[in-house]
Amino acid sequence: MVVTFLSDFGLDDEFVGVCHGVILRRAPQARIIDLAHGVPPQDVRAGAVLLAAALPYTPPGVHLAVVDPGVGSERRAVALRTAEEGRCLVGPDNGLLLPAAERFGGVAEAVEIGGSPVASPNPAPTFHGRDLFAPVVGELAAGAPLEAVGTPLDPKALVQLPPPLCEVGVGWLRSEVVLVDRYGNLTLAAAGGALAEAGFQGGTAVVASCGDRALPLRVGRTYADVEPGGGLLHIDSRGLVAVAVREGSAQAALGARGGAVVLLKAAGG
Amino acid sequence: MVVTFLSDFGLDDEFVGVCHGVILRRAPQARIIDLAHGVPPQDVRAGAVLLAAALPYTPPGVHLAVVDPGVGSERRAVALRTAEEGRCLVGPDNGLLLPAAERFGGVAEAVEIGGSPVASPNPAPTFHGRDLFAPVVGELAAGAPLEAVGTPLDPKALVQLPPPLCEVGVGWLRSEVVLVDRYGNLTLAAAGGALAEAGFQGGTAVVASCGDRALPLRVGRTYADVEPGGGLLHIDSRGLVAVAVREGSAQAALGARGGAVVLLKAAGG
Amino acid sequence: MVVTFLSDFGLDDEFVGVCHGVILRRAPQARIIDLAHGVPPQDVRAGAVLLAAALPYTPPGVHLAVVDPGVGSERRAVALRTAEEGRCLVGPDNGLLLPAAERFGGVAEAVEIGGSPVASPNPAPTFHGRDLFAPVVGELAAGAPLEAVGTPLDPKALVQLPPPLCEVGVGWLRSEVVLVDRYGNLTLAAAGGALAEAGFQGGTAVVASCGDRALPLRVGRTYADVEPGGGLLHIDSRGLVAVAVREGSAQAALGARGGAVVLLKAAGG
Repeated sequence: MVVTFLSDFGLDDEFVGVCHGVILRRAPQARIIDLAHGVPPQDVRAGAVLLAAALPYTPPGVHLAVVDPGVGSERRAVALRTAEEGRCLVGPDNGLLLPAAERFGGVAEAVEIGGSPVASPNPAPTFHGRDLFAPVVGELAAGAPLEAVGTPLDPKALVQLPPPLCEVGVGWLRSEVVLVDRYGNLTLAAAGGALAEAGFQGGTAVVASCGDRALPLRVGRTYADVEPGGGLLHIDSRGLVAVAVREGSAQAALGARGGAVVLLKAAGG
Repeated sequence: MVVTFLSDFGLDDEFVGVCHGVILRRAPQARIIDLAHGVPPQDVRAGAVLLAAALPYTPPGVHLAVVDPGVGSERRAVALRTAEEGRCLVGPDNGLLLPAAERFGGVAEAVEIGGSPVASPNPAPTFHGRDLFAPVVGELAAGAPLEAVGTPLDPKALVQLPPPLCEVGVGWLRSEVVLVDRYGNLTLAAAGGALAEAGFQGGTAVVASCGDRALPLRVGRTYADVEPGGGLLHIDSRGLVAVAVREGSAQAALGARGGAVVLLKAAGG
Repeated sequence: MVVTFLSDFGLDDEFVGVCHGVILRRAPQARIIDLAHGVPPQDVRAGAVLLAAALPYTPPGVHLAVVDPGVGSERRAVALRTAEEGRCLVGPDNGLLLPAAERFGGVAEAVEIGGSPVASPNPAPTFHGRDLFAPVVGELAAGAPLEAVGTPLDPKALVQLPPPLCEVGVGWLRSEVVLVDRYGNLTLAAAGGALAEAGFQGGTAVVASCGDRALPLRVGRTYADVEPGGGLLHIDSRGLVAVAVREGSAQAALGARGGAVVLLKAAGG
């Protein structure tokens, strides 16, 4: 059974490794794929975008995701089964899991696992990853059914993230930055189709602005479509609109972080 | 056989991956769990705290830990067997392994592996991880007994870390910071029981100070017990006293790094 | 079958995890070793040095490496088989793979995989790791022969990196920095033998300079051969000349980054 694991734990501390240990104690044959543990701390939206982008490329299995600013509060903890492929998703009920579930036909079944019989009897209030989520994942990976790890919950009651800012018109597009990668590429909330909607064809000159900074871009398919140091507006590997600087950093050029709003306008428009 | 691996090698270079390769050449069936490789460079105490916190959650097996400022010097290299669960710990004899061994009844048996017959014949003097420790771990994971990888050593001769600064009185607690995580949480050397000893009950107002900086705290169980931006004094998931700022960074607020001394005093006290 | 994986993707995003997923879909039994994903972004030379240093320590298998500033351009993508041990190397044809192949007798056979029948039918032009390289690696790890994943290519046509700057004379050595690790150690392009060629014996006092900064060094075998805070000139674990500061950072002392040129001169010479 394949287990995937995404979190904002980082890899400096023992948090991720400890969860591996807990899972493997219960499911010694599990294959664990670390999807990403560098989600910006407590950035639920960034985690949701990464998870939804990643799961279609992994084998079906049990998918653990923990970006959990409300750990220890009244927020629910859940395990879900998707309508297609029967994948199990486990994590906090804060909107993190749902965009990924949508890639597989949505949620067919959900259980609340807050008082799960398989959790640690005295869970640390600040580390449900270790004491609640990992035990549930281990049981599911060892073959337990969803009913064995929690109590039924109406999928319609699951918490959704508010939609990110994303507006399109002819000749312009305004959208929130949802991800910044290590190359300084900025991924927006806008789906790739928004480029055509705005009338931004291949080769179009566009200006990106964020606060008082601006960056000229050219619409293209890949970095090689612009000169070194040049700005590129493209559809990234996740199918989202993205701003890049070839052999440079769009983040540095625009001073934009996750959550910042970027305006794209046709040049001279 | 499960192998766990903790180090201060970081993940930018090939050091960790190379050790995986060496282990798997000798024990192709080993399952390797990376516990953490972001221990602050050469911070033996931080490594010891992380290892002791993590091992109780992993399956028993062979446990490699390398934080080794004395690599290539006369410091001993050792392999240990714990009294309980018969876990094998492998690493430098600088105090790194002993707090973890204590979690399993202490050291039942020890061997010195500096001239191990299974080590690389020409070990690089700056990378014993690859040329000495990983071969020993591989042999142990493949089933070799401790005697096959080294020469007997009296467990009482093993090097201990000096105890960290940690003093408690009624209404105050002074302790060294032993860990700083990526959220900026500060973990102190003080065990959780010190909070009660100091008279710090749930809800108590406390002031943390470090050098000329101060941070007001509230004693609680989890982040949700304080307002966003508020300071929290709690027992962390390792069972140690910790200082946090909800949706913020206690490290930034106090300017404290590993080894810094933090004073906690009852507010108005 | 062992698969190794090196890239400049970093571990913050889902890029590495997604490639694991794609490989495991095609080769569920593969053992994947992450060699390093923190190669400085788009630094092909650093990636090549790390890969060549690491592979001799891993089991033979399929070796994926992606540092690919030309992704989406006309640069070729290739899979190679080495003359010795029959290892398969997969990645962009930009010089990244060849130094590693040289460790195994060079390239016996090569195929171009740009239009591989096993690649994703609509590869994202910015993420060949996921859509081209990982599928090819998965097929090879599942037992496919090289001919099944691409079209034959003359190994002599493969792109080579230009040799790095490296000059030696009696009493001096000038070389490019090819790697900087997390301890701030600087690894030069010069092979270890260059120290003897320059007449730098154990104990020799040498001055390193880079731009307007200088650092006194002592030739030694390991950190313990100099005082804490002292500079060390040694042959590192990769067999290359390296500059270190014991319990400090040579990078900070010299202000040198990858690609910088360091001059080593006998002190007083």
